[in-house]
Amino acid sequence: MNSNPSEFRDILEVFDNPAPQRNFTIEHHCPEFTSVCPKTGQPDYGTIVFTYVPDKICVELKSLKMYLQRFRNEGIFYEAVTNRILDDFVAVVQPRRVKVESRWTPRGGLNSNIIVEYPEESSK
Amino acid sequence: MNSNPSEFRDILEVFDNPAPQRNFTIEHHCPEFTSVCPKTGQPDYGTIVFTYVPDKICVELKSLKMYLQRFRNEGIFYEAVTNRILDDFVAVVQPRRVKVESRWTPRGGLNSNIIVEYPEESSK
Amino acid sequence: MNSNPSEFRDILEVFDNPAPQRNFTIEHHCPEFTSVCPKTGQPDYGTIVFTYVPDKICVELKSLKMYLQRFRNEGIFYEAVTNRILDDFVAVVQPRRVKVESRWTPRGGLNSNIIVEYPEESSK
Amino acid sequence: MNSNPSEFRDILEVFDNPAPQRNFTIEHHCPEFTSVCPKTGQPDYGTIVFTYVPDKICVELKSLKMYLQRFRNEGIFYEAVTNRILDDFVAVVQPRRVKVESRWTPRGGLNSNIIVEYPEESSK
Amino acid sequence: MNSNPSEFRDILEVFDNPAPQRNFTIEHHCPEFTSVCPKTGQPDYGTIVFTYVPDKICVELKSLKMYLQRFRNEGIFYEAVTNRILDDFVAVVQPRRVKVESRWTPRGGLNSNIIVEYPEESSK
Amino acid sequence: MNSNPSEFRDILEVFDNPAPQRNFTIEHHCPEFTSVCPKTGQPDYGTIVFTYVPDKICVELKSLKMYLQRFRNEGIFYEAVTNRILDDFVAVVQPRRVKVESRWTPRGGLNSNIIVEYPEESSK
Amino acid sequence: MNSNPSEFRDILEVFDNPAPQRNFTIEHHCPEFTSVCPKTGQPDYGTIVFTYVPDKICVELKSLKMYLQRFRNEGIFYEAVTNRILDDFVAVVQPRRVKVESRWTPRGGLNSNIIVEYPEESSK
Amino acid sequence: MNSNPSEFRDILEVFDNPAPQRNFTIEHHCPEFTSVCPKTGQPDYGTIVFTYVPDKICVELKSLKMYLQRFRNEGIFYEAVTNRILDDFVAVVQPRRVKVESRWTPRGGLNSNIIVEYPEESSK
Amino acid sequence: MNSNPSEFRDILEVFDNPAPQRNFTIEHHCPEFTSVCPKTGQPDYGTIVFTYVPDKICVELKSLKMYLQRFRNEGIFYEAVTNRILDDFVAVVQPRRVKVESRWTPRGGLNSNIIVEYPEESSK
Amino acid sequence: MNSNPSEFRDILEVFDNPAPQRNFTIEHHCPEFTSVCPKTGQPDYGTIVFTYVPDKICVELKSLKMYLQRFRNEGIFYEAVTNRILDDFVAVVQPRRVKVESRWTPRGGLNSNIIVEYPEESSK
Ligand SMILES: [Ca+2]
Ligand SMILES: [Ca+2]
Ligand SMILES: [Ca+2]
Ligand SMILES: [Ca+2]
Ligand SMILES: [Ca+2]
Ligand SMILES: [Ca+2]
Ligand SMILES: [Ca+2]
Ligand SMILES: [Ca+2]
Ligand SMILES: [Ca+2]
Ligand SMILES: [Ca+2]
Ligand SMILES: [Ca+2]
Ligand SMILES: [Ca+2]
Ligand SMILES: [Ca+2]
Ligand SMILES: [Ca+2]
Ligand SMILES: [Ca+2]
Ligand SMILES: [Ca+2]
Repeated sequence: MNSNPSEFRDILEVFDNPAPQRNFTIEHHCPEFTSVCPKTGQPDYGTIVFTYVPDKICVELKSLKMYLQRFRNEGIFYEAVTNRILDDFVAVVQPRRVKVESRWTPRGGLNSNIIVEYPEESSK
Repeated sequence: MNSNPSEFRDILEVFDNPAPQRNFTIEHHCPEFTSVCPKTGQPDYGTIVFTYVPDKICVELKSLKMYLQRFRNEGIFYEAVTNRILDDFVAVVQPRRVKVESRWTPRGGLNSNIIVEYPEESSK
Repeated sequence: MNSNPSEFRDILEVFDNPAPQRNFTIEHHCPEFTSVCPKTGQPDYGTIVFTYVPDKICVELKSLKMYLQRFRNEGIFYEAVTNRILDDFVAVVQPRRVKVESRWTPRGGLNSNIIVEYPEESSK
Repeated sequence: MNSNPSEFRDILEVFDNPAPQRNFTIEHHCPEFTSVCPKTGQPDYGTIVFTYVPDKICVELKSLKMYLQRFRNEGIFYEAVTNRILDDFVAVVQPRRVKVESRWTPRGGLNSNIIVEYPEESSK
Repeated sequence: MNSNPSEFRDILEVFDNPAPQRNFTIEHHCPEFTSVCPKTGQPDYGTIVFTYVPDKICVELKSLKMYLQRFRNEGIFYEAVTNRILDDFVAVVQPRRVKVESRWTPRGGLNSNIIVEYPEESSK
Repeated sequence: MNSNPSEFRDILEVFDNPAPQRNFTIEHHCPEFTSVCPKTGQPDYGTIVFTYVPDKICVELKSLKMYLQRFRNEGIFYEAVTNRILDDFVAVVQPRRVKVESRWTPRGGLNSNIIVEYPEESSK
Repeated sequence: MNSNPSEFRDILEVFDNPAPQRNFTIEHHCPEFTSVCPKTGQPDYGTIVFTYVPDKICVELKSLKMYLQRFRNEGIFYEAVTNRILDDFVAVVQPRRVKVESRWTPRGGLNSNIIVEYPEESSK
Repeated sequence: MNSNPSEFRDILEVFDNPAPQRNFTIEHHCPEFTSVCPKTGQPDYGTIVFTYVPDKICVELKSLKMYLQRFRNEGIFYEAVTNRILDDFVAVVQPRRVKVESRWTPRGGLNSNIIVEYPEESSK
Repeated sequence: MNSNPSEFRDILEVFDNPAPQRNFTIEHHCPEFTSVCPKTGQPDYGTIVFTYVPDKICVELKSLKMYLQRFRNEGIFYEAVTNRILDDFVAVVQPRRVKVESRWTPRGGLNSNIIVEYPEESSK
Repeated sequence: MNSNPSEFRDILEVFDNPAPQRNFTIEHHCPEFTSVCPKTGQPDYGTIVFTYVPDKICVELKSLKMYLQRFRNEGIFYEAVTNRILDDFVAVVQPRRVKVESRWTPRGGLNSNIIVEYPEESSK
């Protein structure tokens, strides 16, 4: 991966949480994600699901879409891209909590899902 | 949004809970909700689900339908309308607890759900 | 509703629990329930699901079917009929615990479910 | 029912648990179960699901199939046969824990499931 | 089974966990598993699902596929192969936790699933 | 069956076909049909589907619903009620063609469908 | 197979076609069929579907169920039993046309369907 | 309905068929259609499906969406709106052939579909 | 592919058609097929479906299973193996007609089906 | 679109039809297609399905995948890309017949399919 991470984050826009006085949950399902396998150079396809409890701000949907499109020609592994998306989301949106799941189409007869949470899930 | 919120709440009608001596659960699924995106002026479409434990009164179904129809030409964002419906429901029906979920059809290849509860869910 | 509740309960027949020494669960799904809306006079259609842990006796299936058919021409609201069925079941079968769920077909574009439990669920 | 229960149990064969040092779960789904209703003489049809944590031994699959076929012409009620299968399984396989579920096809417009566990589930 | 277990494990390749500072979950679904029943000599077919929290390393997908293909002509029972795959995975990947599930196609009208976890699940 | 057939037909209302200059197809799905088995006195439940090409008039939906409700306490067999509904529809709506299908819930482990068309389908 | 075929047919009862003046279609789905494999002695399970255009008479449902139950302990192959059921149906009900389909649960990882029609389908 | 039909048609935009030398098929599924019942004043919800073979021009998607939105507060019956949409489509797009289907959500326990084609389907 | 084709065919066993006087259809679904890609050496997985009208003989199921297992370690392309299976079936079973379909699991994000018929389908 | 069409076609590789003496059907489902909307610059996502009867040659799967990936950053409309893929396929593979279908994910609440055939379908 040769892109500058901070440049990706800059795309994310936010707006004021309309109900910061309560904890509530927002889910965004993004079934049109694609990036490139750094080993084979072949495209990967997947769905990214965000589930979060906003604090002071919420993520703006169109900017989230534009952010995800930045990975279209980016070479990056499943595990790395999912952790990176979580890190970017936490850095910009500063939610009370967030879970990022990536669900990938089959490669070589196997298909994978990655689930990352902030604050971190316990190991048990 | 330029409508008067209290005017919306007035539409909701209630009837006496037939079993106030026990906690029990009522669910109403409303798959024909539509409002208008205040940014684009385009209609949004979704399902609203109410899950509640009534206290002294229950919401009357036809009035719930008429209440939801008031949003048909209202400009309001996903997060705001879901919180507003919860606030209206709590103000009029005064349930022991209630959850409002909104599930929206895709826009720009992404689809979103919002889940709000009273009393408020904890952040963990 | 002008029928005599005790008359309905009398239809329910029971038999000895074949394993009273242990707690186990029995579910009966009854997808052919119909009653009448007391407001509009129109028929309502739904599924009634019983989930119970028997104590000394179990409910006999054919009598449960005949009991539910007694509501065919009875005018009664969703919330009232679900609570009434629970009360009748508890009175006759005296289970260790029981849940009655009613799931109704759509009316006016909305569909509802009611869930009642004995002993009562907590409000949280 | 006029068959000798111990005769049924004798059909079950076992083999050594290949990993007795750890708790792990085995599920067997048996969708081709049939017995006879002792009241009507009509055949009943259902699925039996075993979920167990083996101790020293595991049940051999072909013998489990032959065991279940012994009920083909046996007159026995839903609740009784499910408890009896659990008792036979516990007596022969002596698992750390086991759940037996029977799921029956509709009769008279109703369909039933029975769930029995060892050690016994609590009533709450 | 006449193959050398250590020889199988050698096929598994690993790479550095890109986010060892947090607990996160990786799932791999492998629907094209086949081995041979040691009793009948007939092929068995199933799906293997891995769910794990990596520690210092992650398993490389292509090597996982090649590892599973090694069982193609191996005679081994359901319960044994599932425990063996868990043991191999733990030995090579040393995850914080891992669950291996095998889901088998029907044989003789019955179908089975085996679920093994590390660290071991409790018996209750 | 002791009701007067002509009395049933009188419930059906019609309105002018808005496009009589062309052949087009109208389908009405009515999943809440119930009548009574004349042999057992037990209720039957089914779905009635109308597929027709209107000529000068179309059937009014609310009257179609009220018409079907007239069978609620009527004793009549599957084959007879389907043919009778077709005859009533043809007599009142006089369509260019129409098919009536009834799909019944299981009785005694069997479920049935009846399909009647006007003008009559050929036997081959 | 050592039963007397004519004895089986005798179970089928009929009633007068309520609409012999037109061709219409009747379907009966019978998902609880079981017979015995004459080669292995093991039970087979399947669904039998009848689709027919009645002439002067229709088959009575309860007798159809009792007829199918006669095969419960009968040793007979898939192809033979499907053809025999067609022959029995044609002999007793004398329909204008009839199709009998049998759909069997998997054996040895393969599952089969047999479709027989009267009058006979052409080979192309 | 008090809107001017020609005003609606004007919204539809077209572009040159990129392959007018051959017959090919274009389908557009529009699941977010809503209009108003002229009798009850209540909103109706449905899906509109266009299937057409273009001649010289194709319909532009965004204009098709804007065209359908014009019916949002229009009072018009199922049968009339489906025929009107076909007429508008034929007038503006002049396709070699086109089918318009409308599939409506349930009202009063019944749900309807309307299918209109150009050139007209035959009555048999 | 280095196996001798005639050797494969020899595995297929047949039995006398129990109803050679009529044309009827037999389907066998075989979801556990596996062969090897001659280019990559990787296993392929698929379902083979046979649909045929028998003439004097029918294929015996267990031999069909054993026949298909012979391809387990055979290197052969999708198109070739499907045509070869058809040729073998026609040579041994000599049916009035037969269709062989192979449906393959995804490779490289694409999945394929091959359909071959005897007598040959026309090109239009 | 500023790419050179002949350059795209050059990627497609072929191999000899293993059964040119008969007409048979090959289907390839390619669910991971993506191109770019020339109007908005936003990515489009879809599935491409090829159904063809080969003549002297068949298309090689890996080259078909590489060919489709060439559209990843190409600006081209739904109707144009589907016709272009058909033209390329016919030019290189020269099949007896072929159908290309493209099925696109929703944009603005509408989703589209395009179906193109060679030789051309008739307009009726
Ligand atoms: Ca959630
Ligand atoms: Ca979620
Ligand atoms: Ca609930
Ligand atoms: Ca709920
Ligand atoms: Ca339950
Ligand atoms: Ca389990
Ligand atoms: Ca349960
Ligand atoms: Ca998981
Ligand atoms: Ca139709
Ligand atoms: Ca039919
Ligand atoms: Ca049929
Ligand atoms: Ca089409
Ligand atoms: Ca279509
Ligand atoms: Ca077939
Ligand atoms: Ca095909
Ligand atoms: Ca096809």
